Amino acid sequence: MKINDQFFMKLAIDEAWKYQFLTYPNPAVGCVVVKGDSEILSIEAHKEAGMPHAEVNALKEAYLKYHPNDLLKMKKTSHEIHDYLIKNHNGFFNDCKIYVTLEPCNHEGKTPACANLLKELKPKKVIIAHEDMNNIARGGAETLKGENIDVNIGCMKKEAYELLYPFLKWNSGTFIFYKMAQTLNGCIDGAISANQAKAYVHTLRDKIDLLLIGGNTVRTDKPTLDARFIAGRAPNVMIYSKNKVFDSNIPLFKIPNRKVIVSDDLFKLLDYKFVMVEGTYNLLDTLKDRLDYILLIVNPKIRKGVNALNDLDINFEIVHENYIGEEKLLFLKRK
Amino acid sequence: MKINDQFFMKLAIDEAWKYQFLTYPNPAVGCVVVKGDSEILSIEAHKEAGMPHAEVNALKEAYLKYHPNDLLKMKKTSHEIHDYLIKNHNGFFNDCKIYVTLEPCNHEGKTPACANLLKELKPKKVIIAHEDMNNIARGGAETLKGENIDVNIGCMKKEAYELLYPFLKWNSGTFIFYKMAQTLNGCIDGAISANQAKAYVHTLRDKIDLLLIGGNTVRTDKPTLDARFIAGRAPNVMIYSKNKVFDSNIPLFKIPNRKVIVSDDLFKLLDYKFVMVEGTYNLLDTLKDRLDYILLIVNPKIRKGVNALNDLDINFEIVHENYIGEEKLLFLKRK
Repeated sequence: MKINDQFFMKLAIDEAWKYQFLTYPNPAVGCVVVKGDSEILSIEAHKEAGMPHAEVNALKEAYLKYHPNDLLKMKKTSHEIHDYLIKNHNGFFNDCKIYVTLEPCNHEGKTPACANLLKELKPKKVIIAHEDMNNIARGGAETLKGENIDVNIGCMKKEAYELLYPFLKWNSGTFIFYKMAQTLNGCIDGAISANQAKAYVHTLRDKIDLLLIGGNTVRTDKPTLDARFIAGRAPNVMIYSKNKVFDSNIPLFKIPNRKVIVSDDLFKLLDYKFVMVEGTYNLLDTLKDRLDYILLIVNPKIRKGVNALNDLDINFEIVHENYIGEEKLLFLKRK
Repeated sequence: MKINDQFFMKLAIDEAWKYQFLTYPNPAVGCVVVKGDSEILSIEAHKEAGMPHAEVNALKEAYLKYHPNDLLKMKKTSHEIHDYLIKNHNGFFNDCKIYVTLEPCNHEGKTPACANLLKELKPKKVIIAHEDMNNIARGGAETLKGENIDVNIGCMKKEAYELLYPFLKWNSGTFIFYKMAQTLNGCIDGAISANQAKAYVHTLRDKIDLLLIGGNTVRTDKPTLDARFIAGRAPNVMIYSKNKVFDSNIPLFKIPNRKVIVSDDLFKLLDYKFVMVEGTYNLLDTLKDRLDYILLIVNPKIRKGVNALNDLDINFEIVHENYIGEEKLLFLKRK
């Protein structure tokens, strides 16, 4: 296997995918710091909006790799880490290559600009997979080039685009994904997922703007649709139903501070940026041309049961995959 | 993400899996060479029986990383690489850590002993995931310790055991895997796989001792069951059938130098070490308690069609996965 720019960028991309969706409304971004030709110092990602950007996490861990007991260890916020590194780097990064999946941000927002930090640290080279197309944050590469830092753009751009895709949709409209769980052979009935996968779904519910669910599922399953497994925020819910009458004792209606819409107008989805669809397989057919992703959780077993999808024809690309415990998580993008 | 022994060993294990089954009758083994604490010099694997072991490939690539135009580049056989490195290493590996998924072999077989090569190169440390349990080849760790090389055994042992498992079965009896292809939703009828996956299946047919197929599939599909996509060897075939009468014009009977057995005695499988089962889903039920792996090729599409597995209940562990082009390859081990 070749140890080259693609190898290091792939590590950055894979690390970023671990936090895909969880960084909303920010993009998922990964960063790898390499000293000299191939001494790998850190592989980090942006983990949640408001927390340090991928570059800041990676630069901090890289510095700590050589200075394990340094005061930097105690610095947690972006501002603290920026300030500390600018004062104390002492040329540490001058022989380093920085691999980052998205062009470093160029403007001071909730956190200081990464391009500015890198400019001060003067690494040997910054390798960027995908340029920033956001009018406010863009221009990081130019800032670095202006300081005579070697900048390369486009390494694994296609893979970085897929990583960035949900963010691009959040910025330009609505990103809709359908969460489903099945066995290897496509059975969808009965209890499919283990607790770890359930907790992950609750983590997603805590992040989204709206949860769309079908009326029949609500009537049959009487769900709560909250994020209790992670003590998170219960999302607003839209129930897709022509018949507007529901038993108000169904738990989902009892959650405080939650908005519930009952409607059969799917155009309402476009009022939201980040929508998850759960549970109702007839909705998959209705929504299939509007859907960005299917997030498929696969339990590795073969089971007798109902296979409800055999009437559909949809082509996907597997843009990424992770494990949740022993189950597979596939990010499927409609082709 | 932590850059530690587990991180480097995982790279070695993943590289080895790329050649799983293709090294038969040898084990799939991976090796990573790291200079100093985390300067990654090479990630290599054993690729085919008779070719250099993983350690030899990794040591060669590591040396070439620092000496890109060295004569070593021209050395291809194990003997040549061993001899050249022993004469010319000049202490290059003294500050290196060698991560290897299986204890380095300790005996001179088709290739010279890896333990002997490492002993001469005197790396700082050798990290071994799984000990060699083969009576002939074992003892490599002791050889290294005898030279005061720091040896650590057991890093990611569980993952290394899974990697080694087919080899352990080849050595102690019969390894049987069932190759199947399906869409995401479990449809198995019609053309499923792309050409790249078909070529992979032919690569497997070139390696196995026996291909088992059901009589009905032979009668219906009239297959050739050779390895023409890779100009490989056509495997011997056992047709599982009570009815021994077949149309001799079916292409599989026309392949020269191939043995074809027609039998309903599955005990005959135990005369072979490496058996692949193809095509007949009723055989999955018959064989399910004898099966080591299912090798599942998943095409990422949802399709209308037949789901033939809905009458089975089997639990699996996903022991590894790769891509073949846009399709997924899952190595499923029966739990």
